[in-house]
Parts: sequence; C-alpha cells; structure tokens
Amino acid sequence: MTERRDSAVIAQQLQHRSVRRYLDAPVSDAQLERIVHAAQRASTSSNLQVVSVVAVRDRERKRRISRAIGGRSYVEEAPVFLVWIADLARNAAVMRAGGAEPETLGLIENTLIGAVDVGIAAQNALLAAESLGLGGVFVGSVRNNPEAVSAELGLPRHAFPVVGMALGVPDPEEGTGVKPRLPLAGVLHRERYDDRAWRPAAEEYEADYERYFATQGTPGRSWARTVIGRLATAAGLHGRHTMRASLRAQGYDSE
Amino acid sequence: MTERRDSAVIAQQLQHRSVRRYLDAPVSDAQLERIVHAAQRASTSSNLQVVSVVAVRDRERKRRISRAIGGRSYVEEAPVFLVWIADLARNAAVMRAGGAEPETLGLIENTLIGAVDVGIAAQNALLAAESLGLGGVFVGSVRNNPEAVSAELGLPRHAFPVVGMALGVPDPEEGTGVKPRLPLAGVLHRERYDDRAWRPAAEEYEADYERYFATQGTPGRSWARTVIGRLATAAGLHGRHTMRASLRAQGYDSE
Repeated sequence: MTERRDSAVIAQQLQHRSVRRYLDAPVSDAQLERIVHAAQRASTSSNLQVVSVVAVRDRERKRRISRAIGGRSYVEEAPVFLVWIADLARNAAVMRAGGAEPETLGLIENTLIGAVDVGIAAQNALLAAESLGLGGVFVGSVRNNPEAVSAELGLPRHAFPVVGMALGVPDPEEGTGVKPRLPLAGVLHRERYDDRAWRPAAEEYEADYERYFATQGTPGRSWARTVIGRLATAAGLHGRHTMRASLRAQGYDSE
Repeated sequence: MTERRDSAVIAQQLQHRSVRRYLDAPVSDAQLERIVHAAQRASTSSNLQVVSVVAVRDRERKRRISRAIGGRSYVEEAPVFLVWIADLARNAAVMRAGGAEPETLGLIENTLIGAVDVGIAAQNALLAAESLGLGGVFVGSVRNNPEAVSAELGLPRHAFPVVGMALGVPDPEEGTGVKPRLPLAGVLHRERYDDRAWRPAAEEYEADYERYFATQGTPGRSWARTVIGRLATAAGLHGRHTMRASLRAQGYDSE
C-alpha cells in the first residue's frame, strides 16, 4: 500500500490566509448552515456540545459590535459575522430539567473545555467556508469587550463570546499572502520537549518574517517586536487584562 | 455563478468519528510532519504561534502516560500519541532576548489564547490525518493529570498540556458510527441568542441519542444523564477540579 501524504483537505489547509476584504456578494443561508453543520461534526469533549454560534447580518448590529471592540472594518463589511460562544447554558438547563444542580460550572476546567471546543468547531467552519470559495478571519478582538458583545447578542449566564469570525467572498485585490510560520523543528518535539531545537528555529523564523512583510510593502518588521508589543505589557492586550472579570460576569468564574 | 455548498473538505468533515482501535500499522514520520505542518497553517492569535506538539512513539512512555491519566488503551496502542501544548515559553524567551520582561503571561486571557489556538491547530491536524486514511481521537484526559504529563514530557514553565490525540490506521472492526449532534437549530442563532430555539432542539436530540446508542449495542442511554454525570459534581471531572492549581504549576496563573 502506497503511503498517502497529500489530499484535497491538506491542499486547502496549506492555502489558508486571513481574508479581511470582501466583494459585494452574499454568503447564503444555505452556505451558512452547511458551514455550521460541518463545525458541529468536529469532536466535542465528552459529547457535551458546549459550542453555539450567533450569525450577525444586520449592518447596524455589526457596526455597533465593531465600535465596541475598537473598530474593525471587516466586522462591518463582511456579509456575515459569526460569534462563537462557549455555551454551558444549554447543559445547565438540561441538567436542571433532569433534577441535578450544576455544581462545577465555575471551575476553570470548564472554561478550558469551552475555549478548546470553540477552537475545534470554528476551525472546521473556517476551512469549510474556504473550501466553498469564501474567505474569512478569526476576530479575537471580540474579547476586547466581551461585556458589550454579550449584551448586544443577549447572551445568558454560562454563555461567553470566545472568538468572532468574519466571512465573505474574498476581494482578490486584497493581495494578502500566506504568512510564514515557525519552522517545523520549532514546534514539533519527539518524545520530550526540546528547547534546544526551537531556539535556532525561532532565529531562522525572523528572517522569513522580515522577508514576507517586505513583499507586503512593510519592510523592517520583526517577530520578536510583534510578540513584545502584544505580550510584554497590559497595554498590548487592548483591554483584555480584565478578562477574568469578564468571564465571571458570564458565569465562567474560572476558579 | 453557481453557489457551492459542498466540497471534498466538507465531505471529510462530515465523516468524522473518533477512532480508538488501530491496525498494527505505522504512521510514518513523513505523514506526521505533513500533519503538523497542516496544523501550523491554521490561524494563530496575533501570529503569536503559541502551539507546540510532542509526538510520543516510545511504548513505555505511552504506557506511563496512560497509567497516569486513568488508563486509556488507545494511548498505549496508537502508533503515535500527540500531546498538544499551549506554549508561551517560546514567546517568553523571544521577549527576554529582545530585552522585554513578559508581564502579562499570568493573565487568563493568555490561557484562553493557548486553549483556543490549540483547538484550532489540533483540529486541522486531525482532519489532515483523516484525509490520509488515518483515524484518531482527542484525549482530553491528559488533563486528568497535567502534572504527570508535564513531567513525563519535560515541559518547561509556560508550557501546558491542553489535549492529547491518539493517531493510527483505523481498525475497521471497531465499528463506531457517526454520533448524532444537536439539531442545527440548537446551536445556530440569528442576530441574537435564542434559548426558545434550542430547548425543543435539545429534546429532539434525546431521541436521536438513544437511537444511536441502541444501534451500538447500548440501549437506554440519555444525553441528559451523560451531561449530569460529567458536570453535576466534581466526581465527574476525574481530578480536573484542581485544574487552576495545575495551570499555575506550569506558569498559567490565569488571574
């Protein structure tokens, strides 16, 4: 048997780039339902199915969300903006209907389950959308203001907006390329974690990174500076330094 | 232009089932590298690339991990067992090399980024593996004992084992089917969250759930009881009620 190393799926995955500019063309409801159906088929921790998604098409609502999270043109301009929810509200209701009081929902393990399962489902959704000729981008900045997003979407207790996703037909003039990643040796370890392997890989990556952004018209960029800008101080977090309180406000006490 | 609603990618996604029994056949290193490469191409929050993976093939190491997390035959028997790591250690080193002290790593926002990005990358990996004729299963039970798994893999501070993944060539005799999910109306909301839509959907799901497990030889199962067994009390968490301390031990203070 010949060993397979390539497939249409992998070809699609390797083409991924974030798309933030869209043609004036719709994403139909049939496509949206197909995409969310594909997302649902992904694995879910203990079959708890803690993921929900709110699809926003209303222009004024998209504009209000964009303004609340710091201004994101792609949120306003995408024909559909999805908000992926870590949703234990359904489980809590099912448990209460079955006569049990949910005692563990405030534990951080359940915050982890929600975040991981949102990542799994949302990635299936984005790849499905890309395979239909659509494009999109994850919008982590919904976490710049989870309170406003939760209020706008009417989220109940135990429902938290983990990440957004703008979807539309890609504008070919955007011209974003496939961004380089760390060399494989920087992320894949054998048997045990090896930081002697990733240190040279991270250095090698700086050169790839600079080269890529030079082709995009922004020479002189550095991964180290990007990381420092994002993680060194609370200012880089765009309001997310208060995330624990935001989670708590939606019932994710994360104890 | 005819609107596309189906693709090879979506067909692959809809076939997903968890595979826990494997033929005595290898997963080659070339396949493993292709799978992790596909995982790397997925989106990553602010290009921070906080995901690493440790591939374990050594039989004794797999056995020790299995024993530490409560005994999982598929961890021992899969030719390769992957542990997906939320890894800020690389970012921290890059920042320090650039003269910055990472001040924010203990915030729960960074725990969320790690968990979501692991979910995104790992789902790309599993789908890539499935598209090559392999099968696998997410192993959340690495979180039953993150301390032991971290020690076994030699994880440094700021590296946390979020989820495992057993991969191999599926044993066709396992016979697991495609498990039903909540009806679409139970998870997809329009414009605002609507719990009047998901309540009947959750009830409808109970019938699908019972029917599926009856075909698998275990009649009388109930989703509500599964959810209650898993979430109602700390006992259902298999040791994960102390997750906050486990995270803290790896530098994820989650404040």
